[in-house]
Amino acid sequence: MVQETQTARRIMSGNRPTGRLHIGHLFGVLTQWVEFCRTSEAFFEVADLHALTTSFERTESIRRNTTELVLDWLAAGVDPQKCAIYVQSHIPEISELHLLLSMIVPVAWLQRVPTYKDQIAELGPEIATYGFLGYPLMQLCDIAIVRANTVPVGKDQLSHLEIGREIVRRFNHLYGATLVEPQPTLSEFPDVPGTDGRKMSKSYDNQIEIADDEPTTTQKVRSMVTDPLKIRRHDPGRPEICPVFALHKILNESRVPWIEENCRSGALGCVDCKAELAEKLNGFMRPVRERRASLDENAVGAILDAGAEKVRVIAKETLADVKSAMKLP
Amino acid sequence: MVQETQTARRIMSGNRPTGRLHIGHLFGVLTQWVEFCRTSEAFFEVADLHALTTSFERTESIRRNTTELVLDWLAAGVDPQKCAIYVQSHIPEISELHLLLSMIVPVAWLQRVPTYKDQIAELGPEIATYGFLGYPLMQLCDIAIVRANTVPVGKDQLSHLEIGREIVRRFNHLYGATLVEPQPTLSEFPDVPGTDGRKMSKSYDNQIEIADDEPTTTQKVRSMVTDPLKIRRHDPGRPEICPVFALHKILNESRVPWIEENCRSGALGCVDCKAELAEKLNGFMRPVRERRASLDENAVGAILDAGAEKVRVIAKETLADVKSAMKLP
Repeated sequence: MVQETQTARRIMSGNRPTGRLHIGHLFGVLTQWVEFCRTSEAFFEVADLHALTTSFERTESIRRNTTELVLDWLAAGVDPQKCAIYVQSHIPEISELHLLLSMIVPVAWLQRVPTYKDQIAELGPEIATYGFLGYPLMQLCDIAIVRANTVPVGKDQLSHLEIGREIVRRFNHLYGATLVEPQPTLSEFPDVPGTDGRKMSKSYDNQIEIADDEPTTTQKVRSMVTDPLKIRRHDPGRPEICPVFALHKILNESRVPWIEENCRSGALGCVDCKAELAEKLNGFMRPVRERRASLDENAVGAILDAGAEKVRVIAKETLADVKSAMKLP
Repeated sequence: MVQETQTARRIMSGNRPTGRLHIGHLFGVLTQWVEFCRTSEAFFEVADLHALTTSFERTESIRRNTTELVLDWLAAGVDPQKCAIYVQSHIPEISELHLLLSMIVPVAWLQRVPTYKDQIAELGPEIATYGFLGYPLMQLCDIAIVRANTVPVGKDQLSHLEIGREIVRRFNHLYGATLVEPQPTLSEFPDVPGTDGRKMSKSYDNQIEIADDEPTTTQKVRSMVTDPLKIRRHDPGRPEICPVFALHKILNESRVPWIEENCRSGALGCVDCKAELAEKLNGFMRPVRERRASLDENAVGAILDAGAEKVRVIAKETLADVKSAMKLP
């Protein structure tokens, strides 16, 4: 019999506190996080320092957004008893690690990250700060400080993590094996369209928020774009281009064949189709929203304090190991 | 009668722990530091994180150099009861401030510092790390974290401090008056030549160390270059190009007219002239060296601990003000 040595999976992930989350986050990331709480050691970070990289000129909403973000996580079922929920800036060891590791990271590595130039092109040259340039290093520090071995990433984040892994390898090469090299776990999430048919995103203002109430949700579903050639009820529709149909596929799987057939034939009109989706969505969201409504905002502070305390035990160990490996006084 | 409001002068300065100090440091910087201890609140930092910018690949000597550096300071008369002596990496708030301020510092400001490109040209491209690029920001954090209002600088350091002042102004403009804008106090030190006539510097290996004993000092003075045209005793000499004469001017002022006259006439030979200098220098150094020899190396740790404790009281306040001004959670 072969006995396998299993290393416990330690997951680290986070969101920037830039506003309330929407159902696109819920169907994708948060459902996975709830699963992580059951299967792994999990660390979920409110990345307030990351938020500063792009919004250092308007920081007044970070506090409120932090609370909203944590309420969304909890509403989705993320269990603070089974993971650590914490604010990045409450862990001084992240900043210390960041400064130490900055010494071994060539500027050229950071400059070659595709998103660096893309974002400057998109958001303007005033974004080209020293902090923004260091974004991938800061992400690595978030991961390395809790010694996470697994990081859920979308494809667009792979290059950031790859730099992080390079930094770890360089550190371990220079000072001896100290840091854990994190592995990506690629996440395949359903494409969740927003009300205008584009990817659901706050920046398109096409989102249905986790915190929306039922009338708001119904109203937003009613306003969704559909096949532009299906103008009247009996016109035949093309479900493959309809965002309402895309949401049925996520939320209403058993009814998909019937809806597809009757949309194509023209028997099903968009008004009825949307009404069914709104009802289904509100049904799905009801326990999440009830949980959110029942949460005490004032409890968020205590959850974050407990999370920071838990994280700092590990963070202090990691930092002490790093300083000792670097032979600092 | 006009009553003046006087703000206490708070000085911040430091050295990188790269080795023992030499008498050039003593006649210049350290004499001034001893004075600062009497006239100002003074903060003296062992800049170990700065040392990493250029020597991240060989860190094994930083600990030993830290001890030697502090022993040199104490030997010179810097009084730990009247200032704070501490290690940079023992103050986590410096790293936290560094990460926060990094968000408002354009990369272009850092790239335009003259020493950035000069040093890369001199030390090689492997020095071009993210940490090295951030050097002037790190210096500003050292100063700002203790709210120092005055920084002694040489002319070559003025551009670093000017960037620091720009960072402070930008922060105060964005988030309200929070940080103290430090003023430079330009230091005019005597030019101290090394044994080969060039500026005394460890990198030229022409230094007389504070910790050198008397025979070593005498031997080093004996080996000093002099006027190459004065070969025999009775040859006339040119004191204005002789490093031995330059040291007489610093250490042996009352005898300078006589030495000058008799060097020019040829009556004074270099052997005698050096013997007088060695005696004078050893006499001057005797109390410093006796103090250094009497110091208990093991006491350095306690001095650094006490210094860090003192600094962190202020550093925590500064950081809390900064986080509050930035409206972090």
